[in-house]
Amino acid sequence: MNTLEYIEKNKALFLDELFDLLKQPSISANPKYKDDVIRTANMVKDGLNKIGINNSKLYETEGYPIVYGEKIIDPNLPTVLIYGHYDVQPPDPLELWDSEPFNPEIRDEKIYARGACDDKGQFFMHVKAAEIMIATNTLPCNIKFMIEGEEEVGSENLEEFVKKNKKLLAADIILISDTGIISNDTPSITTGLRGLSYVEVEVTGPNRDLHSGLYGGAVANPINILCKMIASLHDENKRITIPGFYDQVETISQEDRKLMAAPFDVEEYKKELEIDDIYGEDGFTTMERNSIRPTLDVNGIWGGYIDEGAKTVIASKAYAKISMRLVPNQTSGQITSLFENHFLSIAPKGVKVKVTPHHGGEAYVSPTNNKGYIAASKAMTSTFGKTPIPIRTGGSIPIVALFEKELGLKSILMGFGLDSDAIHSPNEHYGLFNFFKGIETIPLFFKYFSE
Amino acid sequence: MNTLEYIEKNKALFLDELFDLLKQPSISANPKYKDDVIRTANMVKDGLNKIGINNSKLYETEGYPIVYGEKIIDPNLPTVLIYGHYDVQPPDPLELWDSEPFNPEIRDEKIYARGACDDKGQFFMHVKAAEIMIATNTLPCNIKFMIEGEEEVGSENLEEFVKKNKKLLAADIILISDTGIISNDTPSITTGLRGLSYVEVEVTGPNRDLHSGLYGGAVANPINILCKMIASLHDENKRITIPGFYDQVETISQEDRKLMAAPFDVEEYKKELEIDDIYGEDGFTTMERNSIRPTLDVNGIWGGYIDEGAKTVIASKAYAKISMRLVPNQTSGQITSLFENHFLSIAPKGVKVKVTPHHGGEAYVSPTNNKGYIAASKAMTSTFGKTPIPIRTGGSIPIVALFEKELGLKSILMGFGLDSDAIHSPNEHYGLFNFFKGIETIPLFFKYFSE
Repeated sequence: MNTLEYIEKNKALFLDELFDLLKQPSISANPKYKDDVIRTANMVKDGLNKIGINNSKLYETEGYPIVYGEKIIDPNLPTVLIYGHYDVQPPDPLELWDSEPFNPEIRDEKIYARGACDDKGQFFMHVKAAEIMIATNTLPCNIKFMIEGEEEVGSENLEEFVKKNKKLLAADIILISDTGIISNDTPSITTGLRGLSYVEVEVTGPNRDLHSGLYGGAVANPINILCKMIASLHDENKRITIPGFYDQVETISQEDRKLMAAPFDVEEYKKELEIDDIYGEDGFTTMERNSIRPTLDVNGIWGGYIDEGAKTVIASKAYAKISMRLVPNQTSGQITSLFENHFLSIAPKGVKVKVTPHHGGEAYVSPTNNKGYIAASKAMTSTFGKTPIPIRTGGSIPIVALFEKELGLKSILMGFGLDSDAIHSPNEHYGLFNFFKGIETIPLFFKYFSE
Repeated sequence: MNTLEYIEKNKALFLDELFDLLKQPSISANPKYKDDVIRTANMVKDGLNKIGINNSKLYETEGYPIVYGEKIIDPNLPTVLIYGHYDVQPPDPLELWDSEPFNPEIRDEKIYARGACDDKGQFFMHVKAAEIMIATNTLPCNIKFMIEGEEEVGSENLEEFVKKNKKLLAADIILISDTGIISNDTPSITTGLRGLSYVEVEVTGPNRDLHSGLYGGAVANPINILCKMIASLHDENKRITIPGFYDQVETISQEDRKLMAAPFDVEEYKKELEIDDIYGEDGFTTMERNSIRPTLDVNGIWGGYIDEGAKTVIASKAYAKISMRLVPNQTSGQITSLFENHFLSIAPKGVKVKVTPHHGGEAYVSPTNNKGYIAASKAMTSTFGKTPIPIRTGGSIPIVALFEKELGLKSILMGFGLDSDAIHSPNEHYGLFNFFKGIETIPLFFKYFSE
């Protein structure tokens, strides 16, 4: 039985198993879901043991456990380390979902659920691909699985685990499916990721909420001040104003920018998002703005009276969550401290400002002449019938830079999602085409990589 | 038995009765408290009937009922119309209260509860003063009570009631205690109030929440845009930039500004609010900034991910509640439409903006040579031992301008609160001194006004 026959025979079962995973609200950001996250880790472990990765177990960390298992068929053969994550983003705003986020549902040939694409649906392709290779006796090399539960909150404990377990994790390449392709007709492999610096800011004005009639106009209103401070972080060309922010940014030649330019239909993009115009740093295209350029976005803001009706209050405090996407040569720690210093320096008298760093991560670029890249490219060419385009993407998988630093290994980012899959948004979904195409492609990666 | 003896004898009872009122969460802004608001209206009505305002009843409106009652001792004598409101502001943020907002408690000679000062504690002084005058047979003129339940949400249905009941409400003066004095040592009477324009704004970017990695930097982020738009509403001198905003603002001569300058200790003010500096429109003092100058404050802002932890999302929508305090000659309707036109005009392409007006109200100035003002001044001089200072205050009681327009009556704003009473804030309170001083002073107002 070949791969396609095995998939055909087990389609319903594969989906059932994936649905069991998707039903778990393994939201790492919210401590309320602790039991669910741990239950999910155990399900992943059991799933690996079931397919013949017999020694799979949970490695405890200070946060959520890491599922690790391996099948070493011959120490002299190459080893592929699969990385993925079983935790998911919070599903809110819940009211915008058309079906329950943790009650997966197939509509229009797509699986709708939080985590369907990011990353349960994608790492699970590797579990099923391994099942096929083991069952059909075609696994051509050693395979290791490391599936963590804190990717959506910064993978803080993975670093410690990787540092402590370099021997356990020894491999020749890391293979990750946590990214996407340009479209189902246009395969691509991600060769660059942005880094991330994420901070929370708090602006405090008066020591208590005040009546806006009695105090309005006479004291610094922390919400107005926060808005003013945030507004000042971009100039009229939509460039970030933090001193030193661009100092380390990798300069890419006009020629290289041309080579990277993937096909892109701006009208389609606007239509799909229902916006009347795009918006971003002057002098760069949309695809460049969200891949080779660093950015600063407010991810959340709150303060004062936010319920129904009107309340005439001057809040004592206002808050925002702000993230910066970084590009090669910018480092997360340095950018976080540039931000902090600048943000404190622009606070007017009359308010106090606090900056709390959340997680961060480094940008990553992978070469296209690497053995792993070539194997991925050949595998995709074979299953898609087209050579995949190497692209840089705007997202961040901070641990990819960590793996390179600690394990000396390159990561091949062969993901099968689509930008329109609404990951981190309501109605996240993953195409059945993409799920099964991934399972079909992965064994070929192993084959070409081992040749 | 004179007023003071009556108060002395009934102190505990008066407080018990007030506490019963304060226990009702009559929050007009939140429909969830509908039953509580209506129960409170009935308690006020019953309280009036009990003291001899025998015909008190509820007048239904499209919103909450208005409690009305009167005692006409002789149609040829003057009539004083008392106005107050039995509804209160929402108590949130609840976690900042040291005691339950609807479980009143006396600490340090102060009554702590939502509504203790604004306005249950203050209008109830009039009920008890009327009780005393009726019981001791010293009521020197006719008295009417109109206590409404929608002051905190803009008194929208009061307007209709006033227009329809001009005969019922016919009087010589309106007396209101919903303001304050400078301090317990420095009595004052409010001769000016600011108007109010209150709007809610909504900025919509992409049609759904997006992953900030994949879209960050490439689309207009509605939170960043909202901040930018709000920041642009003030210039570097902290003046409001809305074209035409200051056109109608009453110009006050340097001489008049000097006359109005009440004693003010800026260091004490900063210390009490725990701020390291004051903040406001250049060229004006703190007391001027919050009385004779118009202002613009954000009262609430929200958008994106605001729970614990980090979520890398670009929100589809961001919101703010914005209020402007207005001064004489500015009109609420005109300012609301100047705001709306300007706010829509500054929205960059890539977002859609919606402005929804909430309630508004007009500014008010009352003359100090009016018979009512003189009576209030004499009454306070008698009970405080000092002539009260006429002051303009920053708050708004929009119906005061309405009363003048519809009933042709001036309102005397003889309130007994303090700026430090934390109305609209956690730990709202009202001094026992102030409560009983009010009950003592009000009968003297009636006496001097009838002479």
